[in-house]
Amino acid sequence: MSERWFEDYVPGTTAEHGPLRVAEDDVVDFGRRFDPQPFHVDAEAAAAGPFGGLIASGWHTCALMMRLLADQYLSPVSSLGSPGVDELRWVAPVRPGDELTLRTTVAEAWPSRSKPDRGLVRTHVELLRQDGTVVLTMTAMNLVRVRPAR
Amino acid sequence: MSERWFEDYVPGTTAEHGPLRVAEDDVVDFGRRFDPQPFHVDAEAAAAGPFGGLIASGWHTCALMMRLLADQYLSPVSSLGSPGVDELRWVAPVRPGDELTLRTTVAEAWPSRSKPDRGLVRTHVELLRQDGTVVLTMTAMNLVRVRPAR
Repeated sequence: MSERWFEDYVPGTTAEHGPLRVAEDDVVDFGRRFDPQPFHVDAEAAAAGPFGGLIASGWHTCALMMRLLADQYLSPVSSLGSPGVDELRWVAPVRPGDELTLRTTVAEAWPSRSKPDRGLVRTHVELLRQDGTVVLTMTAMNLVRVRPAR
Repeated sequence: MSERWFEDYVPGTTAEHGPLRVAEDDVVDFGRRFDPQPFHVDAEAAAAGPFGGLIASGWHTCALMMRLLADQYLSPVSSLGSPGVDELRWVAPVRPGDELTLRTTVAEAWPSRSKPDRGLVRTHVELLRQDGTVVLTMTAMNLVRVRPAR
């Protein structure tokens, strides 16, 4: 998996990666740094709040999703970064103790016309909780190098 | 700013928030935790890589954007979380030492029919570097409580 090139992202291919456990300390630490809303950083206030307890910042959920994507879907030999993401949805809350699994489905893979060393891969991404509930969906775009000629 | 309700998000209103400085240690720390691609975590490899140096993970940029949004645009009395984000684009790299400013423009504000205590605010978000270059754009959605009756 560490050597993966544009040609290896075949549209229609689905894979699952993970799981990754969400620790309460990490939820609060991420919240304090980046998203200090009461339901991310204060267990007592969160219990009385709209989610009935602490939930991970949506951006923390994205960061955990990225960890799985970087470790198990992208490859350091070919990954050239991302221009962006479409239709990012936080579908259900992520709580401390949840175990998250990433499901990737290659949607499209377009060779670049202007830069023949790379292509654009569009991937449907779902993140699931241990009970099978989908907690996050999005369409990722990634620039990926083509396999070098021998 | 700490008491802000649905009625205070008036479509067409633009505001700027920040700036926030991007520290190299934080770029590498975030990368190691969540996005360990060479151009986020290894200055030497990054110098020889596609961006010619270390750049912040796109999700780190989102997290910094969220910090400004949480501190200066949302309000703890009324913020009920977010269903998601549309057309998230990482337009230009963010590098250690950059100073980021958030520009928000209220695009739409819809009262909820089913839950009259809240509404949905759509916000065009831009994050700018100290030289005025836009580095991130997106459309945010936020659920926001209406002002309570006296």
